[in-house]
Amino acid sequence: MTIRPHRIAIAPSGFKESLSAARVAEAIATGVRRVIPGAELDLVPLVDGGEGTAEALALAGGGRLVSRTATGPVGDPVASHFALLGGGTTPGPLTAVVEMAAVAGLALVPPDRRHPGATTTYGVGELIRAALDTGARRVLVGCGDSGTSDGGAGALQALGARLTDRHGRELRPGGGSLHELERIDPAGLDPRLADTELLVACNPYNVLCGKRGVARVFGPQKGATPAEVELLSAGLERLAAVLTRDLAPAFAPTAGAPVDLRTAPGTGASGGLGAGLAAVGARLLPRYDVLLDGLDLDARLARADFVITAEGALDHQTVRGKIPAEVARRARAAGVPVLVLAGTIGPGAQDVRAVGVDAYSAILPAPMTLVEAIGRSGEFLADATERAMRIMALGTRLAPVAPLAA
Amino acid sequence: MTIRPHRIAIAPSGFKESLSAARVAEAIATGVRRVIPGAELDLVPLVDGGEGTAEALALAGGGRLVSRTATGPVGDPVASHFALLGGGTTPGPLTAVVEMAAVAGLALVPPDRRHPGATTTYGVGELIRAALDTGARRVLVGCGDSGTSDGGAGALQALGARLTDRHGRELRPGGGSLHELERIDPAGLDPRLADTELLVACNPYNVLCGKRGVARVFGPQKGATPAEVELLSAGLERLAAVLTRDLAPAFAPTAGAPVDLRTAPGTGASGGLGAGLAAVGARLLPRYDVLLDGLDLDARLARADFVITAEGALDHQTVRGKIPAEVARRARAAGVPVLVLAGTIGPGAQDVRAVGVDAYSAILPAPMTLVEAIGRSGEFLADATERAMRIMALGTRLAPVAPLAA
Repeated sequence: MTIRPHRIAIAPSGFKESLSAARVAEAIATGVRRVIPGAELDLVPLVDGGEGTAEALALAGGGRLVSRTATGPVGDPVASHFALLGGGTTPGPLTAVVEMAAVAGLALVPPDRRHPGATTTYGVGELIRAALDTGARRVLVGCGDSGTSDGGAGALQALGARLTDRHGRELRPGGGSLHELERIDPAGLDPRLADTELLVACNPYNVLCGKRGVARVFGPQKGATPAEVELLSAGLERLAAVLTRDLAPAFAPTAGAPVDLRTAPGTGASGGLGAGLAAVGARLLPRYDVLLDGLDLDARLARADFVITAEGALDHQTVRGKIPAEVARRARAAGVPVLVLAGTIGPGAQDVRAVGVDAYSAILPAPMTLVEAIGRSGEFLADATERAMRIMALGTRLAPVAPLAA
Repeated sequence: MTIRPHRIAIAPSGFKESLSAARVAEAIATGVRRVIPGAELDLVPLVDGGEGTAEALALAGGGRLVSRTATGPVGDPVASHFALLGGGTTPGPLTAVVEMAAVAGLALVPPDRRHPGATTTYGVGELIRAALDTGARRVLVGCGDSGTSDGGAGALQALGARLTDRHGRELRPGGGSLHELERIDPAGLDPRLADTELLVACNPYNVLCGKRGVARVFGPQKGATPAEVELLSAGLERLAAVLTRDLAPAFAPTAGAPVDLRTAPGTGASGGLGAGLAAVGARLLPRYDVLLDGLDLDARLARADFVITAEGALDHQTVRGKIPAEVARRARAAGVPVLVLAGTIGPGAQDVRAVGVDAYSAILPAPMTLVEAIGRSGEFLADATERAMRIMALGTRLAPVAPLAA
């Protein structure tokens, strides 16, 4: 029997604190080849603005990484970096990519210091200024995997704004002091911002305030107690009000309505960094609209017989803007089936079926600790891919399963 | 599109210390129905002679369980049982099923007392006598899941044999004293054995002595140190020699060659219980030849579009006579594909592909302890079956995967 080779698009996310998207794609390809050695594989590692984004965009776009020491989330200096794309002999403006996770990510917060009321995005502002120093006048800030909840207050301070309490004293770092915010003085803001296009790649599901506000949704996983969550929520409400009063008039968009800093899509990105940067004129963009530019993703998915995507944890958050959900939506539009491989499967994972995921599988072979699972995730991913491909291959020998009614 | 319903045979093993084969089959059926509600399911829970065998055969054969207190593997009394099949209004002889695991199984040995040199099959002999008391003259002894390595010495003592050292003293219980065995006196053996058909359902891969002898293969998992393994091996060698010299002449088979108690198939079953019983005339039978009698398994597998089987741990031992391997061999003979669901996947699992398993999958959704995994195995099994069925259903929409060369 001669059969045209299967065409398989492998378009995964990285596994947080474990494998980059490129390594995830390679592990999946290894597993596929063990079962279907003749398959035509199209590897499209994807990033979502979080960990690995600057490096991935530099690799994909022929850019380079620039190393910089900057203030980390708990105040100590950290070795960080941003990417520079274009410029030089390449046409188009010089664009800098500042990945907030590279300077204020959760992975940079030691587990015993995970108090989101105290962590700061100060380093993000430092990296933006360092990017401006290179001559870049287009800065893309990637959000995701943050360890902060300061509403971008730290970043604004590093950019030159003064945030003061009712005694006129500069606020201490961290979202925990935002409820004391009285006034923001923009006079010292870096003047180069005025002729810079500042773009923020956001998960549009993340909003600053309200019931689904960022402190309530993400505070607990960043280490906040219920009382700290309420303090953070109140602080971010206060920040939104003061930003709107003191900054918005100076940085109103030249076209369109001003962004509602409390509830506009993306204002809650990276602990509210989206809102803070929007207040100084940044445009909050749905991250995949920005990050998938140039990957020709839709066409590559449409050419495939099926798509494999992957994520470290498949759960109720997946459909709220994670990579497998985005891949599934696009693949479904092209009528291509989607398989997800997940490091872990948590509550709500089944919601992904509604956005176009046909099947998903966990990768663990046996009971073990999370630490062991993370340490061996590449091996487990390749093996689990092989197992899933054998189950799928078994299916190809059977009559189609009748689609379920609703 | 109208498609004839899929016919699926569900023929699993139980999960040791967790789920009976019947409950495993039900959990798998639950998962299948979520994806293919119209499928015709044929549930064939299978036992291998170990845990759950007496109950399963009583259920399948219209028999009953008889409760008896007997001596457990560490010497304390345990609540045990055997099954009675046939007799009464049913044609055929009254058959008793004595499941060794129900009186000398590893699950009855507290973890802190797992010294296989000290555990005894004494209770097995007691149950055989209790079965004879009911009038049964056909006794099937199921082996598997044992916590003993005494070569059946305890069972022989309970049946009335005297096992003595060179001072004429009765041996202490357990394989650890077998190296002191000098002589076996059969004079006191229960006289009813003479007109009883004693059958032992064995894994034929298990042999008493030599490099693949039972002490070396299973001693470590029963808790033996390397030094204890060597002591047990020497003791079982000694037992084989004395059994052959002192018992074989009186209990030689009426037809055929005498069994080589060191190396014949099944002599190593349940820590050597096979050899001990063979020495008093029992026939060692490949367990599936006995246990699948009456299930019409081959025909039921042949009618299926595919077969799902399952095992608690899929590893290098699976191909050496475990249920998924037996099911796969039979299904392959009928050209029917086989999927295995496994509680855990260990080293050597891939060997099952050579005996007819097309694909296998693990059931764990996330990192956890073995205790949690065991406690939630039914739920995890149903969910993992659902996931596997969705992957298979995805496969049914694709062109067949070309079979791999070699």
